[in-house]
Amino acid sequence: MASPLMGCFPDNKVSKAHWSLPFLCLAFVLVGRGEGNAMDNGATERMAEESHRQDSANLLIFIMLLTLTILTIWLFKHRRFRFLHETGLAMIYGLLVGVILRFGVHVPQSMSDVVQGCAVNASPATLLVNVSGRFYEYTLKGEVSRGKGHQVQDDEMLRKVTFDPEVFFNILLPPIIFHAGYSLKRRHFFRNIGSILAYAFVGTVISCFIIGLIMYGFVSFMEVVGQLSGEFYFTDCLFFGAIVSATDPVTVLAIFNELKVDVDLYALLFGESVLNDAVAIVLSSSIVAYQPAGDNSHSFEAMALLKSFGIFLGVFSGSFALGVATGVVTALVTKFTKLRDFPLLETALFVLMSWSTFLLAEACGFTGVVAVLFCGITQAHYTYNNLSRDSQDRTKQLFELLNFLAENFIFSYMGLTLFSFQSHVFNPLFIIGAFVAVFLGRAANIYPLSFLLNLGRKNKIGSNFQHVMMFAGLRGAMTFALSIRDTATYARQMMFSTTLLIVFFTVWICGGGTMPMLSFMSIPVGVDSDQEHSSFGMLDGSQRRNTKHESAWPFRIWYNFDHNYLKPLLTHSGPPLTATLPACCGPLARCLTSPQAYENEGQLHDDDSDFILNDASVSSMYADVTVSTDASGSAAVRRNRSSTGSTAGGPFDEGLDHELATTEHEVSIRGTRLVLPMNDQADPPTTVTLPPPPSPPRSDPRRHRL
Amino acid sequence: MASPLMGCFPDNKVSKAHWSLPFLCLAFVLVGRGEGNAMDNGATERMAEESHRQDSANLLIFIMLLTLTILTIWLFKHRRFRFLHETGLAMIYGLLVGVILRFGVHVPQSMSDVVQGCAVNASPATLLVNVSGRFYEYTLKGEVSRGKGHQVQDDEMLRKVTFDPEVFFNILLPPIIFHAGYSLKRRHFFRNIGSILAYAFVGTVISCFIIGLIMYGFVSFMEVVGQLSGEFYFTDCLFFGAIVSATDPVTVLAIFNELKVDVDLYALLFGESVLNDAVAIVLSSSIVAYQPAGDNSHSFEAMALLKSFGIFLGVFSGSFALGVATGVVTALVTKFTKLRDFPLLETALFVLMSWSTFLLAEACGFTGVVAVLFCGITQAHYTYNNLSRDSQDRTKQLFELLNFLAENFIFSYMGLTLFSFQSHVFNPLFIIGAFVAVFLGRAANIYPLSFLLNLGRKNKIGSNFQHVMMFAGLRGAMTFALSIRDTATYARQMMFSTTLLIVFFTVWICGGGTMPMLSFMSIPVGVDSDQEHSSFGMLDGSQRRNTKHESAWPFRIWYNFDHNYLKPLLTHSGPPLTATLPACCGPLARCLTSPQAYENEGQLHDDDSDFILNDASVSSMYADVTVSTDASGSAAVRRNRSSTGSTAGGPFDEGLDHELATTEHEVSIRGTRLVLPMNDQADPPTTVTLPPPPSPPRSDPRRHRL
Repeated sequence: MASPLMGCFPDNKVSKAHWSLPFLCLAFVLVGRGEGNAMDNGATERMAEESHRQDSANLLIFIMLLTLTILTIWLFKHRRFRFLHETGLAMIYGLLVGVILRFGVHVPQSMSDVVQGCAVNASPATLLVNVSGRFYEYTLKGEVSRGKGHQVQDDEMLRKVTFDPEVFFNILLPPIIFHAGYSLKRRHFFRNIGSILAYAFVGTVISCFIIGLIMYGFVSFMEVVGQLSGEFYFTDCLFFGAIVSATDPVTVLAIFNELKVDVDLYALLFGESVLNDAVAIVLSSSIVAYQPAGDNSHSFEAMALLKSFGIFLGVFSGSFALGVATGVVTALVTKFTKLRDFPLLETALFVLMSWSTFLLAEACGFTGVVAVLFCGITQAHYTYNNLSRDSQDRTKQLFELLNFLAENFIFSYMGLTLFSFQSHVFNPLFIIGAFVAVFLGRAANIYPLSFLLNLGRKNKIGSNFQHVMMFAGLRGAMTFALSIRDTATYARQMMFSTTLLIVFFTVWICGGGTMPMLSFMSIPVGVDSDQEHSSFGMLDGSQRRNTKHESAWPFRIWYNFDHNYLKPLLTHSGPPLTATLPACCGPLARCLTSPQAYENEGQLHDDDSDFILNDASVSSMYADVTVSTDASGSAAVRRNRSSTGSTAGGPFDEGLDHELATTEHEVSIRGTRLVLPMNDQADPPTTVTLPPPPSPPRSDPRRHRL
Repeated sequence: MASPLMGCFPDNKVSKAHWSLPFLCLAFVLVGRGEGNAMDNGATERMAEESHRQDSANLLIFIMLLTLTILTIWLFKHRRFRFLHETGLAMIYGLLVGVILRFGVHVPQSMSDVVQGCAVNASPATLLVNVSGRFYEYTLKGEVSRGKGHQVQDDEMLRKVTFDPEVFFNILLPPIIFHAGYSLKRRHFFRNIGSILAYAFVGTVISCFIIGLIMYGFVSFMEVVGQLSGEFYFTDCLFFGAIVSATDPVTVLAIFNELKVDVDLYALLFGESVLNDAVAIVLSSSIVAYQPAGDNSHSFEAMALLKSFGIFLGVFSGSFALGVATGVVTALVTKFTKLRDFPLLETALFVLMSWSTFLLAEACGFTGVVAVLFCGITQAHYTYNNLSRDSQDRTKQLFELLNFLAENFIFSYMGLTLFSFQSHVFNPLFIIGAFVAVFLGRAANIYPLSFLLNLGRKNKIGSNFQHVMMFAGLRGAMTFALSIRDTATYARQMMFSTTLLIVFFTVWICGGGTMPMLSFMSIPVGVDSDQEHSSFGMLDGSQRRNTKHESAWPFRIWYNFDHNYLKPLLTHSGPPLTATLPACCGPLARCLTSPQAYENEGQLHDDDSDFILNDASVSSMYADVTVSTDASGSAAVRRNRSSTGSTAGGPFDEGLDHELATTEHEVSIRGTRLVLPMNDQADPPTTVTLPPPPSPPRSDPRRHRL
């Protein structure tokens, strides 16, 4: 491979520093400043300082962009403008700035190019350059596309607003994905877990292969027609399929949330798009891993496929296990220390542990983003319970803010990239093919799977739901991040450009069209999830059976295990372990059970942990309302719950109650405590302790002893 | 200068990536991964991946360190252990890890060193290396100290836990300094502003020069004795003086806060150490700027000195102006938009604007850290008023968290550095000299200035206060960051090592000895600032006169200007501009005055903005209690205020009231609204509107018209 033609030419660009650290991370940009600061070598120093200044100015552009976006979002919200979501807006601003940078700004070219011949036959991570007896240290930034050597400094300004793609994976995506996991409405999510898993795993794989096959057809056609000016293998097509199969949870769901669309539809879409991202990221890396095995022109090879499949399974389960493990450790630490007396320490610990999941996964060779997702879900399910009220608010608000900033940053960067990226390959045929493929791939995911799922589901996924799911498969941050990660080859550049267009189209057209779509499909909006279930659900027998059916046996087993062992072990809630574990484990159980669990023993004080409200800053806590026989009390609660706009209610418990009521268990209702949701600090916390009902109306699943 | 001896030798170290991004900033470390990811060049890719993994693992060490620190802090707080502050603890853990890394871990040396000759006579910011037709991009990291070329990879592990020093300036210090400004108790700060400015400006300059002179004496002696093995100029001594003159607000004040030490002592120390940092950072950069002007062996030169002085003034005032300007812009934006309906947007805007101050200052060539300090103060003084309650909490908690993490990170890194830094120069004579100089420099700052200030102050700074201020001049994060910024020369390395020891000594010995010192000096602890003033202050005539005296005329003018024009212009509070501006500006005034200002017109609802509580998450709001004639109402308020442990009370207003009461103004008290502080969401907000007193007891300064 080593050719004799080698050159080592430093070019005196004033400020190359890569644009990599969007939030808090200026130092990356300052890399050129380094230690040579107060050295006598004035030129280097001044250069580094100048570079630092320019980098600061460039970062300022982005901050201003975000500020502008925020102000416009406010204006839109203020005027109740809904057709364009904030992410679409961010993209538009990004586009505008991109146009200005591209055509409006001309940085004077004052750089001299020093080309020097030098024999180098390796590209190590660090380079020490000896200049006049001084050693300068250089770090490998990456490969520059071929022949670009002299061209790079032509578009200095554009290059400067280009980030290292790894920023997306290591800085911007983790908070977004963690937030998705942490704010997951687990009640509705778990109720539809089967369907969600089917869409996310089977569906994404189907979509990936369908898109890959269609694209391969198009690419072959393009080759025949002579439209293809580079190599494009089948694995490239599959890779493209994987990256555009990741649907984005952001845009549509913000609209859904605002409109209070049916909770099941919401859960299906949200759950799918969250898990989807994890599947797509692992899938794409498995497809990349397929490549080197062949090395013989990317032909099919069974062993390599198996290997890729093994990698997929290994990486996914490893990341999953790591994420859950850190979550569990955090839960244990917060449970067994009295850290909750110091919310600041608690919050700091929570943040550090969650971040360490990412690092741990990356250090072990798993996928940090996937690990962070499951860590978020675990933290929400267990740790959240142990946190003090203050820390609950803090952590939620912190990740909400990080998510907001990261998301808007990515979307405005997307807009910018359309003009600032310098290796776009827009191929009309490929673009048309991609749009067709994406459409068909999504259809091949939703419709057949829905049909199959409906065979098993009592609560059918209606055809209008299916159409909306089809329509609402927007592509967003993850697709963008995956496609920009590698833009070195012709194939990847073409993919990137096409992906950008797909994202723009779906966010603007599909995102903007969600509302008309919903009304066209006559999907009810303004549905209060509580009301729906606590009024209709109680009356409508079939609906109750649906809920029952959905809680299939594997889930029931998991629920019991979680409720009887994991919750008491990891949190302060649930029945004491002394009650659920066999007698022989007595001492251990006593040791592990929190004192609060005994206090709560008779007070079915469990399900406050089963959800986190997205919107309200104060989570509403309540215990099983339906167990109460006091009609007035229950009515009061219901009114209060709907007044906070809470979308998480008791339906799940009710369903489970009804269902498990068929199995015989001893009944021991000792009392029910109602903790009313508080309206923003104004209401005093009212604790209504209802007297134990004189004759238990029906068996209570939570009190059974194994 | 260009010598013929040049070499360009890439060394195949597996993972050099610098360790630069502590929080959220992994990507910096990943720089080596870059675009070459999915390229065919498998070796580079694997190397980059391996490097990424190792970097993640290394960052994990720090996260674990912080986690451990948090847990131990909790244990200490839980057991009411006070002799060691958390920062001291973080340093100890850092030391331990440093020892382990230094002596325990031996990374196998599997790197081959490729040395290749190559003619290079410049060290540009970016290097493009052509390896076998592929171009790799390298970025300048900085100069490596002379002769280290081959030695570097010997201590790979140690090098890897070494951060780019600029991280401290661009990532870790800004949130710490911003938090200091944002949480400044402005009431007490402004009351002592004259003394604080004297200590911070005059004192720091005195200290810098005293230390510089003493060190020059020591260094000259060392040269005679033959203990000096490198160059050490007078400017180096001055530089040393500047960096060790920055006292740290963290450790002592945490103890003060906990013990409720006298508020004036607290304000003096806190104010001094906050401004101090700003002065030291600008001073040190001015001293560095002095050097190149001479170039003739660092001799004295009047012009260069003047130039340095000009730089000092320019940079300081520029940074100040920028910081205040962004704060004012944020205040205007939050005032004139109804952004407060959306706390998330508001918080995001606040964070972005505050961050942009830093970038703006850096882009203009000023000092970002200094700008951020004044931005924080301005934000707290004006913008904080306009924020929704939710955003007030969010922003405070966010910066509190960032401050906590950054601070503990710096201190544990300090501990680590003692063993991981590889160019330590421990010179016993220099160290002894430095300790003596630091002691004398601090003394020369405090005692003479206190004597002079006492000539003017009625409320004398007692000798016990002076001793405590002398003793409590700890050196911390800023000193460390300034000294690690440049460790390229022998002089700087010696300074760095010595500074490290000074920090350790002051944090452990002085920090730990604060409590005994306080009791030895018989300084009252457990003083509730409210109680002190609202009971004693009312009775003790002399104390009242003190307060009066301290509000000297420049401050009175500023207060009136601020209250009558700036507050109404920038916030929703204060008297309407229509009342304070001359009649000719009527339309403009009407346009700029917030509707709420009219509502509040008669309700002296101003001073809720004059302080931010550090500890309570809910700020206590109240209006002038002493104006009320309703004894029971006022009593209720007082009890309530002390129950929240608020350290900010009405004394300042009272002082000003009493004082300005001597000047005649028309009286127009229309009513007083009391908004009771709320105890953590439990109390409903009680608004007691007192009837206007039948005959105004005395003139009220807030109502006068100019």
